[in-house]
Amino acid sequence: MRATVYHGKGDVRVENVPDPKIQQPTDAIVRITHACICGSDLWFYRGLDDWQPGWRTGHEWMGIVEAVGSEVRTVKKGDRVLAPFAFSDGTCEFCAKGLQTSCVHGGFWGGKANDGGQAEAVRAPFADGTLVVIPPSVENDDTILTAILPLTDVMSTGHHAAVSAGVQPGKTVAVVGDGAVGLCGVLAARRLGAERIIILGRHDKRLELARLFGATDFVSSRGEQAVAEVMEMTKGGAEAVLECVGAQSAMDTALGIVRPGGAVGYVGVPHGSSEAVDLSHMFTSNITLRGGVAPARAYIPELLADVVAGKLDPSPVLDLTIDLNGVPSGYAAMDERKAIKAMVKP
Amino acid sequence: MRATVYHGKGDVRVENVPDPKIQQPTDAIVRITHACICGSDLWFYRGLDDWQPGWRTGHEWMGIVEAVGSEVRTVKKGDRVLAPFAFSDGTCEFCAKGLQTSCVHGGFWGGKANDGGQAEAVRAPFADGTLVVIPPSVENDDTILTAILPLTDVMSTGHHAAVSAGVQPGKTVAVVGDGAVGLCGVLAARRLGAERIIILGRHDKRLELARLFGATDFVSSRGEQAVAEVMEMTKGGAEAVLECVGAQSAMDTALGIVRPGGAVGYVGVPHGSSEAVDLSHMFTSNITLRGGVAPARAYIPELLADVVAGKLDPSPVLDLTIDLNGVPSGYAAMDERKAIKAMVKP
Repeated sequence: MRATVYHGKGDVRVENVPDPKIQQPTDAIVRITHACICGSDLWFYRGLDDWQPGWRTGHEWMGIVEAVGSEVRTVKKGDRVLAPFAFSDGTCEFCAKGLQTSCVHGGFWGGKANDGGQAEAVRAPFADGTLVVIPPSVENDDTILTAILPLTDVMSTGHHAAVSAGVQPGKTVAVVGDGAVGLCGVLAARRLGAERIIILGRHDKRLELARLFGATDFVSSRGEQAVAEVMEMTKGGAEAVLECVGAQSAMDTALGIVRPGGAVGYVGVPHGSSEAVDLSHMFTSNITLRGGVAPARAYIPELLADVVAGKLDPSPVLDLTIDLNGVPSGYAAMDERKAIKAMVKP
Repeated sequence: MRATVYHGKGDVRVENVPDPKIQQPTDAIVRITHACICGSDLWFYRGLDDWQPGWRTGHEWMGIVEAVGSEVRTVKKGDRVLAPFAFSDGTCEFCAKGLQTSCVHGGFWGGKANDGGQAEAVRAPFADGTLVVIPPSVENDDTILTAILPLTDVMSTGHHAAVSAGVQPGKTVAVVGDGAVGLCGVLAARRLGAERIIILGRHDKRLELARLFGATDFVSSRGEQAVAEVMEMTKGGAEAVLECVGAQSAMDTALGIVRPGGAVGYVGVPHGSSEAVDLSHMFTSNITLRGGVAPARAYIPELLADVVAGKLDPSPVLDLTIDLNGVPSGYAAMDERKAIKAMVKP
């Protein structure tokens, strides 16, 4: 089959690789129908992660089950399924708690050891614990399928930021970052009943999308100026802040605009120097820092129900569609900020 | 009257100062009957805080109301009262939320502007919002009064650590630090139903007290060795960790021994280089960092009820009793770790 392979900074290629095969009785083989390129893929694409040539790419995907191992019970050949960006056994202590990203047998798609979703097919370990079957009533509705696709990562991650920040009906929320996760964070905050949603970002097109998703206030400055503006407009800070970038500057801003007693829900993958937090400020104002890698598998059922019911639609973040051969150009478009997020239809 | 005044590193003196007077209609004047020296007082005593000569000391105290301003409604002359370590107006947004330490008109005892409790008397601003009346049934029972005294700070702070760490019945809890706050954290964790309570500390006498308070496991090593031991004995970390020191090493240890999905409740005042946290580790394992300066005023009513009912007794942390003239020797004893915590009876 053909799959996307990392070769070095700025260099991903679609190549012939061995077809995936059932290796464990808990595996499934899934033919990919939809995948995405993620903002977090840009970290290795830009040479900022320790990636090695030959590693597979793509952790956001859905498709049709082609084969299952002898112990798989909840999915069968022909089912249309989506996968969270991490696989998980579904049975361990952490899976039982809804923290499947800490599964003792789990892992992430792509990289050295596992198949990636920017490909024709994948071997999916722990099919029962990992895959979610899309209701047959919508399995051929491409509009709804496109709205479901972001649940594999960015919509679940934005939701995790909102849940971690303690968003509740009537609250004032600030979202740091206007990438796909930040935009989904806006959507999640609105879904959870936030009254006022301030987005901090600099790109007109993305801010327009934020408005469509429910943002009520817009701050396009950065750093101390952005903090000052949010503190002024909220008279002392937002009760919940979603940090959706992962850079030191974004964390500094997020901690600077939380109201005393509030929380920062952080889901941006920490990179580089993002290990310093203003702990004295957090201490004085009882600010909570909560979040991390989103347990998408735990959130997908409730978000999927809302998408199927027509109450949730994150698909506008997918503003570029490519085929498998177009994956390298999709990375380039996102790297150059010409696209928010590329959808791959092999 | 006589009051304790800071003069420089290692130098506190009991001196004659002007008698406190009602300045605002919301003030009360309280004659101190019991006070404490706090472990956090040792920061300025050791020259590690930016304190100036002439500042008053002492933020843990109780006493008898001597006079009240014209607008005071809930306390009256003759009442025996205790104060949390911060005063608060009782009416602002944050007081209404139970976060009195962020009161928009609030402040802390002692320092440049306010009276301190290591003295014969204090002017208490916002008496209604700050002071809690001790039930008359126990107001002359010195055993119970001594058990109530730690609610002014260390018991409420240990409770805040436990609440912030999400301690619940049946959970495994680790407490970093065997000072008065750490010991009260053990007591708080037991009170909230923790099944297993691991304390990390090095002082035999304090660990004996921890055992009395409910600790079930003891780790006397430090740093990476302590982390390895706790990870081994818990098979992957404690669900709730109480950071009760405020030093970088304590925060590193606390973050190193939390189970994925768990929380560090931190109440040690951050000092020095304690601004770095292993955010990548927190991110990967969805570890929450929650806490800060304890809103003791919010916790005192429920803790006081338990003390009066004989269900809670943190008084063993008070292992040295001195009179007002003895305050300088009390600082020295705590600085040299000859005493856990000194009680002052002017």
